[in-house]
Amino acid sequence: VKIAVIGAGGWGTALAKILSEKGLEVVLWCREEDVRNAIADRGENHRFLPGIPLPAGLKTTGSLEGAAGDSEVLLLAVPSPYLRSVASELAPWARGVANVVSATKGLEETTHFRMSEVISQIFEGVVPVVLSGPTFAREVALGEPTALVAASASFEGAREIQARFSTPSFRVYTNDDVLGVELGGALKNVIALAVGVATGLGLGHNPKAALMTRGLAEIARLVSAMGGKRETLFGLAGMGDLVLTCTGHLSRNRQVGIELGKGRPLEDVLSGMEQVAEGVRTTHAAVALSKEHGVEMPIVIQMERLLRGETTAEDVMRELMTRPLKPE
Amino acid sequence: VKIAVIGAGGWGTALAKILSEKGLEVVLWCREEDVRNAIADRGENHRFLPGIPLPAGLKTTGSLEGAAGDSEVLLLAVPSPYLRSVASELAPWARGVANVVSATKGLEETTHFRMSEVISQIFEGVVPVVLSGPTFAREVALGEPTALVAASASFEGAREIQARFSTPSFRVYTNDDVLGVELGGALKNVIALAVGVATGLGLGHNPKAALMTRGLAEIARLVSAMGGKRETLFGLAGMGDLVLTCTGHLSRNRQVGIELGKGRPLEDVLSGMEQVAEGVRTTHAAVALSKEHGVEMPIVIQMERLLRGETTAEDVMRELMTRPLKPE
Repeated sequence: VKIAVIGAGGWGTALAKILSEKGLEVVLWCREEDVRNAIADRGENHRFLPGIPLPAGLKTTGSLEGAAGDSEVLLLAVPSPYLRSVASELAPWARGVANVVSATKGLEETTHFRMSEVISQIFEGVVPVVLSGPTFAREVALGEPTALVAASASFEGAREIQARFSTPSFRVYTNDDVLGVELGGALKNVIALAVGVATGLGLGHNPKAALMTRGLAEIARLVSAMGGKRETLFGLAGMGDLVLTCTGHLSRNRQVGIELGKGRPLEDVLSGMEQVAEGVRTTHAAVALSKEHGVEMPIVIQMERLLRGETTAEDVMRELMTRPLKPE
Repeated sequence: VKIAVIGAGGWGTALAKILSEKGLEVVLWCREEDVRNAIADRGENHRFLPGIPLPAGLKTTGSLEGAAGDSEVLLLAVPSPYLRSVASELAPWARGVANVVSATKGLEETTHFRMSEVISQIFEGVVPVVLSGPTFAREVALGEPTALVAASASFEGAREIQARFSTPSFRVYTNDDVLGVELGGALKNVIALAVGVATGLGLGHNPKAALMTRGLAEIARLVSAMGGKRETLFGLAGMGDLVLTCTGHLSRNRQVGIELGKGRPLEDVLSGMEQVAEGVRTTHAAVALSKEHGVEMPIVIQMERLLRGETTAEDVMRELMTRPLKPE
């Protein structure tokens, strides 16, 4: 089986590494020439996975045609804003493909499409598989024990990816709720923002645990209203990824939240950053979806008001704590 | 309304403090004379909540009769091994009591009864209310925003406690699944042990997030088999408390796990500790319950084997990662 991994960021490179080490024939498409050369010449992705030796058998290419040519599995790991354009360029070369796998988290900015929806629109007749879960790329590359899900409307597709990708340190569970898995992976960033705000306010562990739990409950309500399963959110692609993002290494989303919590306005915070934090865009998407589906999402709403400068971090916490008392 | 808080550890004292500050008449039963004197003379529980000024209106007593005499609400916050004996001594004085609230987490060692079951056995005709959630006592005492549940088979009882105990920084949700709430609060300590083991092995964030997620799924399966609601485990008394225990300040349970992860045998680890970590006893209870109800709980089983010295920390992780591949 030949696998083309599209995108040589940290996550794409880590996946390419473990699949290549498993003995699969892997070609990694790198847009950036310097990354491509570093991997080819020195066996290292110095920009996105520095210090980690990559296997000699891992091939790279700068050509989508070269990557997709005779591959049976396409694994897309480009950032969400580029997925549609890259997939569109890729599709004409991907005639013999059996599985298209999305390892990209996020929603399309203007349409709020999930990544697997974008893929379905571009690759006709393909039932995509989504990989998601608590997976810091660097830890996967280092062989840390990692568990995640392969979700697909095709049970066979999910099973194939499970069998092909699993290793003794990379444990893949199948899941049939693609919508729940993808919304979990995208919307957790809004909760990470909120946990950052609590940190910026100098708050402790109790409020952060409450934000994570009640935040995940909001996302689960939305998923359920949209036809997915609440239960998915309490699995690896929901709770697992949320806990990782909110308590692991400091993410860009939490960092933005911390600065907002300290009282800095959003423009100020973003002006010092190369990329907009995913959670900022996702907050607006989440608000739109909550309105469209008539779901109450108080944390998401408060985060949007804070991002818009319509409230303060202190007021956000006060509003959340003093809502009418309810059943859980 | 007069409230008797039974037990002046950190949690009982913190609850007594916020209820007294809310304007309720609170009497705190302290077994230890030095603690009682310190609270009465200096307004400080120097042993369990050092440095936090307690309200002048907070009364203390060393007599269970004096505490229970004319109280309408009894709030039990003694450690689980003492709950039955303290409650038994208390019961004869508690004739006029409207609500008995358990703030104690854990299962009775020999019987595996939940704390609310013990209370029901001792206080005839009482429908207990259980308080549980992600609540570090010190943070509650400091006024950190905290969310938790009041669970009871009596909707009215849960509502009453919600109304009486809630403040702008202490947000109480009602819940009707007492079993799920209590098993969540008790069994989370087994997962905290497991996360400690991963830490002791030097593992990263991915495996810890996986252990928390899959560990909670095990507990949810057990609760469901016992007649409770899976969903409860994904709320404040389940996920919330689990995340707090596994990622907040280092708990005794995680500490024991860390030492086991480093390869020290259990006797060694426990010989240096004043109290047995709750998670050690709870692991045996969880294994017994899983067998009784026919529920697969691989993490719990591996933890028991490790506690018994029948396996090594490395083998625990290997066993967990290489089980047959499955749906999530």
